[in-house]
Amino acid sequence: MLDFQTLANLAMSRLEELGNISQSADYLDRRYLSPEHQQANQLVGGWMQDAGMSTWQDAAGNLWGRFAAPEPDAPRFILGSHLDTVPNGGKYDGMLGVVAPVTLIGALHESGIKLPFHLDVVGFGDEEGTRFRSTLLGSRALTGKWPQSWADLEDENGITLRQAMAQFGLEFDQVLQAKLPTGNIKGYLELHIEQGPVLEQQNLPVGVVSAIAGAKRFEFIITGMAGHAGTVPMTLRQDALAATSEMILAIESCAKRHDVVATVGQISNRPNGVNVISGLTTFSLDIRSELDERREAALEDILQQLNAIAERRNVRLDRIETHAANAVQCDPALQALLRQAIATQNIAPYTLFSGAGHDAMAIAEICPIAMLFLRCDKGISHHPAESIHTQDVATALAVLSHTLQHFT
Amino acid sequence: MLDFQTLANLAMSRLEELGNISQSADYLDRRYLSPEHQQANQLVGGWMQDAGMSTWQDAAGNLWGRFAAPEPDAPRFILGSHLDTVPNGGKYDGMLGVVAPVTLIGALHESGIKLPFHLDVVGFGDEEGTRFRSTLLGSRALTGKWPQSWADLEDENGITLRQAMAQFGLEFDQVLQAKLPTGNIKGYLELHIEQGPVLEQQNLPVGVVSAIAGAKRFEFIITGMAGHAGTVPMTLRQDALAATSEMILAIESCAKRHDVVATVGQISNRPNGVNVISGLTTFSLDIRSELDERREAALEDILQQLNAIAERRNVRLDRIETHAANAVQCDPALQALLRQAIATQNIAPYTLFSGAGHDAMAIAEICPIAMLFLRCDKGISHHPAESIHTQDVATALAVLSHTLQHFT
Repeated sequence: MLDFQTLANLAMSRLEELGNISQSADYLDRRYLSPEHQQANQLVGGWMQDAGMSTWQDAAGNLWGRFAAPEPDAPRFILGSHLDTVPNGGKYDGMLGVVAPVTLIGALHESGIKLPFHLDVVGFGDEEGTRFRSTLLGSRALTGKWPQSWADLEDENGITLRQAMAQFGLEFDQVLQAKLPTGNIKGYLELHIEQGPVLEQQNLPVGVVSAIAGAKRFEFIITGMAGHAGTVPMTLRQDALAATSEMILAIESCAKRHDVVATVGQISNRPNGVNVISGLTTFSLDIRSELDERREAALEDILQQLNAIAERRNVRLDRIETHAANAVQCDPALQALLRQAIATQNIAPYTLFSGAGHDAMAIAEICPIAMLFLRCDKGISHHPAESIHTQDVATALAVLSHTLQHFT
Repeated sequence: MLDFQTLANLAMSRLEELGNISQSADYLDRRYLSPEHQQANQLVGGWMQDAGMSTWQDAAGNLWGRFAAPEPDAPRFILGSHLDTVPNGGKYDGMLGVVAPVTLIGALHESGIKLPFHLDVVGFGDEEGTRFRSTLLGSRALTGKWPQSWADLEDENGITLRQAMAQFGLEFDQVLQAKLPTGNIKGYLELHIEQGPVLEQQNLPVGVVSAIAGAKRFEFIITGMAGHAGTVPMTLRQDALAATSEMILAIESCAKRHDVVATVGQISNRPNGVNVISGLTTFSLDIRSELDERREAALEDILQQLNAIAERRNVRLDRIETHAANAVQCDPALQALLRQAIATQNIAPYTLFSGAGHDAMAIAEICPIAMLFLRCDKGISHHPAESIHTQDVATALAVLSHTLQHFT
């Protein structure tokens, strides 16, 4: 029997150490292809080797470690997440899903446990997309889906992706070498903090992800008529901000009714004067669901209501679709195995969907995927206040261990 | 019988000429104590003299002309408005209320008409407050209400009011000389463009102002909880922008119910990201009514509803009062006289309140006031598109003429 509590303590102290590798003196900030990316790969690679794993870095700068099966031709199973962070981020987002598996494998290795598949752990170099403003660069390299145009993506200092790769010791034109042969991959499992409040609300340490939500984003532009706050009677107004307010509430209630999440996070208003009626607003909509058809039904309802509000209030409504991605379903068999593993810990197996995007979204193109979510304090993420409980990590390690030893 | 159509043509051509005096080559911009202020005083002073009036400039730089009564000890009646403009303003706001009376008086003078009171016309040097960010400097000088601290008010070039007055040939410390002795002033009547759409909506050239609205302004701060747009379920959100939207609609419907005008013209939102739930918003409220008790009742209703919304949505509501001014009532006898004069033109006497502030607000401290509003195109003002009809000016001149000749 492995001592998951001790392993959790070790994982937490490793996360602490990894969280100190930052390109900023004031907060955690570790971006793709930076010297700190290299340092992180070295540190985690060392832990992999301590765990009896062979290690390598792929053509996109992702770190790999293999806990080899006795049989060289055995299939692969992949655990992983990302090692990069957002600026001023937390030390669990991504890193937990690399460090915890490596720590567990160390214990499996010491205990002489063998698995009937090569167990690979990957630490992706870029998930957040902070440096080059395009997300999932690391995991998308595994799918061979890097367009040539990315060579010229520039970071905030004008360094292109091609140049940054060269500085890191990689070659943009060789990135296809990171593409995984798909024939022998049994699956991909990602442990990740929830980054939301649901598990905490449910008083549960872990939960099984059913799907990663699809999302659409829009920008809406409402054109009314600016006017003097004192001289235009209420009944003669074409107040863009008042129309927008009614639309925001309509979006909110549609989202509740259709059981999707919909967010108006961004708004701008012109002329934005204390004594001037609003003449023009723009606002964003981000709408997500684990089920594409449900998201589309909600969206249709929302657009219908927005049009009706615009017509009734005599303002013009324009919209621009800025993003669209369909939902990705997690593998039912892997989900069932995770639920079973959770039940062995005397914890109610709880299923939730992921509203945030993850590396698993990209990997879903090449193999079955699953995700295990870990409770995080108040759902806070992308913030130094990101926090998890060691006890929950112990639970997650036990669930992972059970899952791996029962996966066939 | 005076030929008001010809007089209106003359007034319009004079307004055109006056509208060319600008400190900007690109648009109309004429600020207090500028060389262009001096030029405008000279131009209008010349028209006053042509109309048989004696002229002087007071200690605040306001231009005066007197159409003297035969009896030297006769009381005074004052017509007037302001000669300054906002940057990129229109050529009727203020100026109409100086140029039209002077043009009318020229005709009275030529016709040998005598009035039983000294008819003074004043062109205020500052109403808009554009240069020193404090409004009504000209008319407030007549009330003797200039605080000593104003000496140090600075314009955008760091020139103080004291320095600007010296450059204009005035002395800040002498400004009390502009204060009017109040004993013998029978009233103040201001002709002004409506700066709103009501008269146009009513298809009327002129209207009688019942009161100048009082106003209160607030800044509200809504503190919710920022969160990830994908991971926080709708039911667990403390979305500051959604709360604000509900508040804006509550303000709008309260305003309609209480028959006041209330405007949320300014909004800011943090962190204002497409995929982040709003954590903090601030928004302004400007609420006005011709009746203080009505405004206060509406405000009480609004605050009650805002508190209820904040409580129900679990967000914090703070407020700061940034401005408060009570309404100023127009003199009933002068209003009645104006209505009677309008009726002689076979026009329905229509009464409305002024939602915008005017020089008359300041002058109300020293004598009875009245205002006559003139229809302006689409209610547009403070904009080069400001526009009025010559025919409406002819009507206003006829109304003014009748009023003056029947005022006792």
